[in-house]
Amino acid sequence: MQKISVAIIGWGNVGRACKRAISECSDMVLAGVVRRPSSIGKDEAELQNTIVVSDIKKLKSVDVALLCIPSREVPSRIKEYLELGINTVDAFDEHERIIAVKRENDITAKVKKAVAIIGAGWDPGTDSAVRAIMRMVSITGHTTTTFGGEKGGRSMGHTVQAKQVAGVKNAVALTLANGRGKQKRRVYIELEAGADLKMIEKEILSDPYFSSDPTEIIPVKSIDKYNTLNHSALLERTGMEVNQRYEVSGINPEFTANVMVCAARACMAAASREDYGAFTLIERPLIEFLPGNTLEERLEGY
Amino acid sequence: MQKISVAIIGWGNVGRACKRAISECSDMVLAGVVRRPSSIGKDEAELQNTIVVSDIKKLKSVDVALLCIPSREVPSRIKEYLELGINTVDAFDEHERIIAVKRENDITAKVKKAVAIIGAGWDPGTDSAVRAIMRMVSITGHTTTTFGGEKGGRSMGHTVQAKQVAGVKNAVALTLANGRGKQKRRVYIELEAGADLKMIEKEILSDPYFSSDPTEIIPVKSIDKYNTLNHSALLERTGMEVNQRYEVSGINPEFTANVMVCAARACMAAASREDYGAFTLIERPLIEFLPGNTLEERLEGY
Repeated sequence: MQKISVAIIGWGNVGRACKRAISECSDMVLAGVVRRPSSIGKDEAELQNTIVVSDIKKLKSVDVALLCIPSREVPSRIKEYLELGINTVDAFDEHERIIAVKRENDITAKVKKAVAIIGAGWDPGTDSAVRAIMRMVSITGHTTTTFGGEKGGRSMGHTVQAKQVAGVKNAVALTLANGRGKQKRRVYIELEAGADLKMIEKEILSDPYFSSDPTEIIPVKSIDKYNTLNHSALLERTGMEVNQRYEVSGINPEFTANVMVCAARACMAAASREDYGAFTLIERPLIEFLPGNTLEERLEGY
Repeated sequence: MQKISVAIIGWGNVGRACKRAISECSDMVLAGVVRRPSSIGKDEAELQNTIVVSDIKKLKSVDVALLCIPSREVPSRIKEYLELGINTVDAFDEHERIIAVKRENDITAKVKKAVAIIGAGWDPGTDSAVRAIMRMVSITGHTTTTFGGEKGGRSMGHTVQAKQVAGVKNAVALTLANGRGKQKRRVYIELEAGADLKMIEKEILSDPYFSSDPTEIIPVKSIDKYNTLNHSALLERTGMEVNQRYEVSGINPEFTANVMVCAARACMAAASREDYGAFTLIERPLIEFLPGNTLEERLEGY
């Protein structure tokens, strides 16, 4: 079997975790890492024995590009790879825009005979698959998702957004449970010299990432002691009738990367059946995310 | 939209729960219930306003047959419906035989342009889908499934098997957690007059349904006070590295029926794309089990 050749686009936490996840998959090989030209040469020790380029065209025969870039940049970047006939996987995290991003890229993918799996992370992503299962096991019911738990966890998307505000030197955005299905945010920020805290607060609080939840902004000298790789989600469904309850809780700072890497397989499976286009995770059969050459291997532990 | 016309084969607990589940689905209609000739006329009050027949050919235009019959009878019965061009859904529960049953029926399904979804219940079924998701979120890890919990729950498959032993008038088989990933069985039986308890014990304990777990057989005057509609499962995955944990717990006596009814939709979706054959649940996209005419409706709560 030819191995799936995967490129990592971006070298942040998710890119690094994707590299580790790829090394756990015997059916995959890392083609290289694509970074901004200004970042080439940094993190040399970590990237020893890895090809690092500023343009994916410099890598040969890439099957799948994993877009490990800030979520907001994803919609405008998918097409760039599809146009080259390269399949894409991303962990785009804005639930309400997923269908639009899928539709925007579906035609390009079909024309270029490529496959894009949109929002193939944790939530949206596998949590969405679990919520689909919840709608199957209790047809009538009520589902809630509560992030962060009591101790709180670091939200990747919110941290990235907070860091991008002008005057913010560094930031970490924690999500804490705030009752069933509700959460609050706590954003620790290091300010740049002369930064205007009021302006920064205003910008963060009006960002759609934060505007719908209670958010506290706390300036600190160093975010280090507030930083954590933890995060968690609790999914609950209560049925309307009889005794129905379904709960899922997960915690893993590398969930997103693990799912993205498995989605590379699902791209290849769809492409092999000439089923081109842009898809959400639950539009692809789960079996195609799993390793193995035979049905027996893929259904291991079924 | 034409409604999906569904027939229920068998009128036990699962058949009854399927009738309730179908009534919750605005895209489905109950074509009728198929029962053994000897049972026709029984349970008249429950089956008021429902067509009851002894042969599915007496029902008109059935799209999907839900096989709500004892699990062991499923493999030999699927073909009967596929041969008529009727799609089938079952909750066959022997994990190690699922692939074989799929393969035995795949060609018939393709020839007859029909779709069979095999093992579309709770476990195997949606729990298998969750275990697939667990293999995605933590690529390297260890999954266990523990049934019954501390209080124990009634196992459908084990109860059906125990009831079929000669000399057993009635039975209920409870499953109790016995440490992580392990369970024990407790079978309460009412004996027929003159029955040989030793022979019955021997037969139950040597049955593959019971032979791999510690099993206690307890003769009682009446099983009524031991009977319960509860059952539960706890699925756990622990990752090998970093802080990874994923837990799913579910409890719902009607999970199986709910999943089977949703699988009727997945049959129709596959057939509409001429993707005929016999499939396990995770070979079909989850979205096709969900209601709705538009992507927005199907991705509700995504």
